[in-house]
Amino acid sequence: MRKLFVIGIGAGDPDQVTMQAVKAMRRADAFFVIGKGAEKQELVDVRTAILAEHVEGPHRIFEIADPPRERTPADYTGVVEDWHERRAALLEAAFDEVEGTGAILVWGDPALYDSTLRMVERVLARGRVSFDYEVIPGVTSVAALAAGHRMVLHRIGEPVHVTTGRRLREEGLGAGSTVVMLDGECSFTRVPGDNLHIWWGAYLGMPDEVLIEGNLRAVEDQIVARRADLRAEKGWIMDVYLLRSV
Amino acid sequence: MRKLFVIGIGAGDPDQVTMQAVKAMRRADAFFVIGKGAEKQELVDVRTAILAEHVEGPHRIFEIADPPRERTPADYTGVVEDWHERRAALLEAAFDEVEGTGAILVWGDPALYDSTLRMVERVLARGRVSFDYEVIPGVTSVAALAAGHRMVLHRIGEPVHVTTGRRLREEGLGAGSTVVMLDGECSFTRVPGDNLHIWWGAYLGMPDEVLIEGNLRAVEDQIVARRADLRAEKGWIMDVYLLRSV
Ligand SMILES: C[S@@+](CC[C@H](N)C(=O)[O-])C[C@H]1O[C@@H](n2cnc3c(N)ncnc32)[C@H](O)[C@@H]1O
Ligand SMILES: C[S@@+](CC[C@H](N)C(=O)[O-])C[C@H]1O[C@@H](n2cnc3c(N)ncnc32)[C@H](O)[C@@H]1O
Repeated sequence: MRKLFVIGIGAGDPDQVTMQAVKAMRRADAFFVIGKGAEKQELVDVRTAILAEHVEGPHRIFEIADPPRERTPADYTGVVEDWHERRAALLEAAFDEVEGTGAILVWGDPALYDSTLRMVERVLARGRVSFDYEVIPGVTSVAALAAGHRMVLHRIGEPVHVTTGRRLREEGLGAGSTVVMLDGECSFTRVPGDNLHIWWGAYLGMPDEVLIEGNLRAVEDQIVARRADLRAEKGWIMDVYLLRSV
Repeated sequence: MRKLFVIGIGAGDPDQVTMQAVKAMRRADAFFVIGKGAEKQELVDVRTAILAEHVEGPHRIFEIADPPRERTPADYTGVVEDWHERRAALLEAAFDEVEGTGAILVWGDPALYDSTLRMVERVLARGRVSFDYEVIPGVTSVAALAAGHRMVLHRIGEPVHVTTGRRLREEGLGAGSTVVMLDGECSFTRVPGDNLHIWWGAYLGMPDEVLIEGNLRAVEDQIVARRADLRAEKGWIMDVYLLRSV
């Protein structure tokens, strides 16, 4: 039975990789690197740096380019589903060329807003290649955000709501503290209220890490402007933030 | 200026420690190990194993026994606050004996249901010792739960609500998927509904890891019984679970 490792590698700092992840990588004969297109070459570079530092034996690397995908479709779930099927076919074809153990390095932790596990299940459901797989958990960008701000995510005994920019716009804040990921639209500007605090972070764990925090109304314009500048400079941005009333 | 590292070490498997954590540990002259009492010696042992494996230079270890604490007080926040103040005094006294860099190894990630950062802020606020501190993020038990079940925490694009057993009993499920921690009372049995699924895990990443999943009403009795057996056998248990309607 062939084996596949789905390995969380942390959210930006190559040193955020765990010993468990390093051990799994060393057992792999082939790596499937699922790219995000040229603008995020730096994200591919973090994976490459991790492999170069920790994996010595012979191994093959398959770069799997992401098929194109509509970014803000009306039928969000349907479009994402279709995109997953096309990615599954690409992974299936790559895995078919491999003898032995494969590995996929996943940004942050595979359990949080990442489609790799759904893709792997889809490859199995297609029934053309068979293998066993194991998940190695990783440090999330949520933990990296909190570490950057040296904060606990919630007040004592309170809950944390983790959501997306889209959902924040549609549904507002959750109970307790709200962490927002996948937000291309600075959706915090649409959350009403004067007594909210924001802890924002971009490129966490990377050389360009930026942290801003303060009363939401006092710092939102600064974040919007800074985000636009950074994005223009580097060609891409990844940011995450926590909102809580004070 | 003295330095303190607050280091997330993962939630049970000593190999869940990151390279970043290992590097920070190697810079420390003294470790403050905040114990939980004899029944959780195994949790102290994971930290000791990590230190023994990764730290070679000379270093001192201070074991700081937790002061006693009322477990289910009426005035929850007040009692926890007071307990933090007593812990802060103990850490302050230990740090006062150290020249150079200190480190505290924190279970999972320091940002999630852990009081170390609040304790550190409290020591600084007391103003008797001064130091700079840095947080190293870690793998959470939430990520370990998802890895054990090889699952994504949420459905595509949906939110995740992370809460405690107490809050689950008081407030019920959140939107999307709900992760429950710190639940000594099998609070899932009090959540009504026939179409809920549960993914439960105990001693995640440890030799005794147990995973159970299924329709909540179909498996809840099994989890309650298994949890009681395990707890009786080992003297303690740590478990976490995810609930979602299907
Ligand atoms: C597709 S999701 C992947 C999340 C990842 N699986 C994790 O565990 O963090 C990408 C989103 O994660 C957040 N993110 C990931 N890495 C980040 C970083 N280094 N700095 C800031 N945000 C980051 C951003 O909100 C981004 O939109
Ligand atoms: C005081 S909180 C600490 C959480 C930790 N900071 C983290 O990031 O996971 C302790 C709770 O975490 C969960 N937990 C931590 N480690 C666990 C493990 N190895 N297996 C199952 N649950 C665990 C349980 O819900 C437990 O009640």
